[in-house]
Amino acid sequence: MKNTIFAFNDDSPKYKQIYEQFKLFIERGDIPANHPLPSIRQLAESLQVSRNTTLSAYEQLVAEGYIRGEGRKGYFVNELEPLLFQNALIPPMNKRTKSQTKSLIDFRAGAVDQSHFPLKIWRRIANQVLALQESFRYGHPFGEESLREQIATYLLQSRGVKTDPSAIIIGSSTQQMLIYLGQILKDDFPSIIVEDPGYDGAKEAFQFHRLTLEALPVYETGADFSKLKQMESRLIYVTPSHQSPIGVSMSIQERQMLIHWANKIQGYIIEDDYDSEFRYTQQPFPALASIDSTRVIYLGNFSKSFLPGIRLSYMVLPKQLINHYKNQFLRFESTTSLLSQLTMAKLMEEGEWNRHIKRMRLVYKRKMQCIVSELRKHFKQEVTIIGEQSGLYLLIKVHVNHSEEWLIERASLHGVKVYPTSIYFIKNHSNQPIIKLGFSNLTCEEIQFGVELLKKAWSK
Amino acid sequence: MKNTIFAFNDDSPKYKQIYEQFKLFIERGDIPANHPLPSIRQLAESLQVSRNTTLSAYEQLVAEGYIRGEGRKGYFVNELEPLLFQNALIPPMNKRTKSQTKSLIDFRAGAVDQSHFPLKIWRRIANQVLALQESFRYGHPFGEESLREQIATYLLQSRGVKTDPSAIIIGSSTQQMLIYLGQILKDDFPSIIVEDPGYDGAKEAFQFHRLTLEALPVYETGADFSKLKQMESRLIYVTPSHQSPIGVSMSIQERQMLIHWANKIQGYIIEDDYDSEFRYTQQPFPALASIDSTRVIYLGNFSKSFLPGIRLSYMVLPKQLINHYKNQFLRFESTTSLLSQLTMAKLMEEGEWNRHIKRMRLVYKRKMQCIVSELRKHFKQEVTIIGEQSGLYLLIKVHVNHSEEWLIERASLHGVKVYPTSIYFIKNHSNQPIIKLGFSNLTCEEIQFGVELLKKAWSK
Repeated sequence: MKNTIFAFNDDSPKYKQIYEQFKLFIERGDIPANHPLPSIRQLAESLQVSRNTTLSAYEQLVAEGYIRGEGRKGYFVNELEPLLFQNALIPPMNKRTKSQTKSLIDFRAGAVDQSHFPLKIWRRIANQVLALQESFRYGHPFGEESLREQIATYLLQSRGVKTDPSAIIIGSSTQQMLIYLGQILKDDFPSIIVEDPGYDGAKEAFQFHRLTLEALPVYETGADFSKLKQMESRLIYVTPSHQSPIGVSMSIQERQMLIHWANKIQGYIIEDDYDSEFRYTQQPFPALASIDSTRVIYLGNFSKSFLPGIRLSYMVLPKQLINHYKNQFLRFESTTSLLSQLTMAKLMEEGEWNRHIKRMRLVYKRKMQCIVSELRKHFKQEVTIIGEQSGLYLLIKVHVNHSEEWLIERASLHGVKVYPTSIYFIKNHSNQPIIKLGFSNLTCEEIQFGVELLKKAWSK
Repeated sequence: MKNTIFAFNDDSPKYKQIYEQFKLFIERGDIPANHPLPSIRQLAESLQVSRNTTLSAYEQLVAEGYIRGEGRKGYFVNELEPLLFQNALIPPMNKRTKSQTKSLIDFRAGAVDQSHFPLKIWRRIANQVLALQESFRYGHPFGEESLREQIATYLLQSRGVKTDPSAIIIGSSTQQMLIYLGQILKDDFPSIIVEDPGYDGAKEAFQFHRLTLEALPVYETGADFSKLKQMESRLIYVTPSHQSPIGVSMSIQERQMLIHWANKIQGYIIEDDYDSEFRYTQQPFPALASIDSTRVIYLGNFSKSFLPGIRLSYMVLPKQLINHYKNQFLRFESTTSLLSQLTMAKLMEEGEWNRHIKRMRLVYKRKMQCIVSELRKHFKQEVTIIGEQSGLYLLIKVHVNHSEEWLIERASLHGVKVYPTSIYFIKNHSNQPIIKLGFSNLTCEEIQFGVELLKKAWSK
C-alpha cells in the first residue's frame, strides 16, 4: 500500500480520511475478506501520521463491523456482501411545474394582518420564556397547564363556555386534533354529518378514519335541519357562529334543536368555533357549548385571531370523553411548540390577548366595510355578497355565464388571485359560480385596486 | 317593567347588560313566547339610556333568534324550548393525586443542557424571522422549503444520506409522523416488527393504526436477527445507530442483511435516527439510509440535539412512498410552527447548527464520562453499565434481589428520581432490574451527588 493513494485534504480530520478510504476499499472488495491489514504502527509510519490517528481510524472501522481486531495477530477484514451502495442522487420530484405569474393583489384567506401584530410584546415575552428552565424539556402531552387555565378563563368570558382546564386539550391544528379525536370516536361512530358546503379540511380529517360522510345542505338562510331525521349518523360537525364558508350563524332555536338531537340519540356535536372573535354587526354569539356542553366537543384556534404560523389550537372535551381521550394519548408527546404555548399563556395573562382581539376586530371591520363598498360600487347587481357580517373573508356569487375556473383564470391574467369555493361542496352545488375573497392582510387601497382589476378581468 | 331590575354595573357596555338581562328573561320563560316587547324608544326612556343602546341590545337578540321585529308592530319574543341551560361548572378532573415529593436530583432523559444553548443566536434569528411577511401566513403542508434544503445538506454531510428536499417531510414529533405515515402503510402492512426492548412511543403510534406487533429480541450484543425468518411482517421499526434503550449499534453486516431482507420481501425499514449526533467513542455511524435508501424510511428530530420544546422532526421517504404520502396529506395543514422552521433553517444556514452539535458532543461526552466514573466508584461490580458509548442516558443493570419498583421508590425517598425500563419490554424481559439514568441537564456535581444518594438509597 503506497502512501500516494492517500492524498490528504484539509476538509476533515486525517483519521476520518483514512477511515473513509479503507471503508471504500472494503466495500469495493479491493481488500478481500479475512485479509490482514497493516498494523497501527506500520500504517502510521507509511502515512506519516501519528499512531493515534491510525488507531482512531481502525477503531471506527471495528465499531462499524468492517474490520476486526484479533489481539496480537492484528486487524483483519470482515465478510461483507457486495451490496449496491447508493450512488445516485434521487432525482428532484414534484418541482413546481406551473410557471407562477406574480400577482399584484392576492385575496387569500388564511393570512393575518401583519401591521397590527403586537410584535414587540410577543418578542419580549418569547425572550423571557426562553430563559425559563421549563422551556428546555418536553412539554405536557395535553398542553401546558398555564395556557389551559388562560383558555378556560377566555372561553368563559368571551364565549360563555364553562370549563375546567383539565378538560382542555392543546394541539397544533384543527385537523391534527380531529385526527386524534377521531381515534376515540370511530368505533362508536362510523359516520358523520358535515355541512354542505363545509370546511374541506375537516372532511379530510374524517376521511383519514374512513368515516362515511352525510351531507347536510346549507344555504344563505342556514342549514336545512329537516334533513337530520333521514340521517343515520349520531355525530355532526358544524360551524355555528360563522358557517364555513357561507357565513350564516345558527339561531338560538337551531342551536337548541341540535343539542336536543344530540342528547336524544346520545351523539356528539363537534362545534368548530374557528373565527368567532370577528363578528362586526353584533357582538360574537355565545358558543353552542355555552348552552349545554354535555354532548358538545368544542374546537378553537389561534390561527385566525393571532398567527397561523404558531400552530396553536385547542379543544374542550365533554366529561364522557375526556378520560377515554387521556388514556389513549397519555404516552403521546405534545404536537405543539412548548415555547409558543408558554408565550401565549403569558400574553393572555397580561391582558394583551384581549386588547389584541379588540383592536383587530376594528381593523378587520374596516377592511370588510371597504371590500363590501368597493364590490357594490363596481359590480352593483352583478354579484351577490355573502357573509359580510363576520370573519376574514366573504363570498361573491357572480351572475355571469362563466365557470368558477374561468373567473379565477381571468382574474389571474389581470394580476389578481381569487379562490374557488367548489372544493367545499359535496352535492349541494350552486347554480352560479361563487368566489372566495380573503382580505385580512390587504390594506383598503390594495382592496380597492384589487376589486377594480377584478371588474376589468370579468368585463367582456 | 321597572327600571330597578336593571342595576347597571361598570363591567360591560350597557347594551350588553340589557341584552343579557332580556336573554335570561326569555330563557327562563319570564317573558312568554310571542309576547310584545317595549319599543326601542320606550325602553330607552325607562332605562334612561340612548336609543342606540336599546337598539343594539335588540339587534343582538334578533340576530341570535331570541326575538323578532315585525316592522311597525314592534318586537316579539320567539318560541324557545325550555332547555337545561348549563349552570354548573364541570368539577375538576384528573387533578394530581399523588403528593409530589421534591427531588434533589432528577435523572430524567428528555431534557437538554440549558447552559450551553445558543440563546442569543436563537433569539436574534427568531426576532428577524418575526419581521418577515411569510411568517404571517399558513406554512407549506410538508414543511418550509428553506428548512428542507438545510436538512438535505446536513443529512448528506453528517449521515451520508443522499436525498432531495422534496423527499423530506417536516412534522412536529416522531409519533405524529409515525401516525401520518401509518395511514399510507396500514393497508399493505397489517403488522410490524419492533425491537424488544424498544421505544414505547413508536409502539403506541403503531397501535394507533392497530398494527400487530412482532417482537425482535435485542440484547447488549445486538438484535437476534435469526428470528426474522419466523416473522410474517414486511415492515420493521429499528434504531440502528443507537438502539433505544439498550444502546448497541448495528454492524455493517447487520445493516446489509436488513436491507437485503427488505429488498427481497418488498418491505420497508423505518430507521429512527433519534440521537445519532451524540456518539462519543467514534464518530457517528452512517445511517442505514446511506447504504441503500430504496426501502428505508428515515426519521430524524431536533428534540435531543437542540430543543424538545420546538417540536421539530422530519422524515425522508423513499421514492415509492413520497407521492402516495403527498396525495394523502396535500390538504392537511402543517403541524409544526412556521416560526421555528424558518428560525432553524436560518440557524443551519449560518453554520450555527454544526457548531452547536460539535460543542454539545463535548459537553455530553464529559457528562457521560462523569456518570460512568461515579457509578464505577460507588457501585463497582454491583451494577452493569449499558450503553455508555453514545446518547444522553445510560442504563444500569442492578445486581440485587429487588424489583425495579423498589429501586425507584427507594431512590425517590432519598430525593433522587430515576426511571424504569420495564415499559420498553414486550416479552424479552430482563432477569434483573434495569434502571434508566438521563443526565443531559445535570452538571457533573449534580451527577456526583445523585449517584452518592443512589448508593445510600440502595444499600441495606
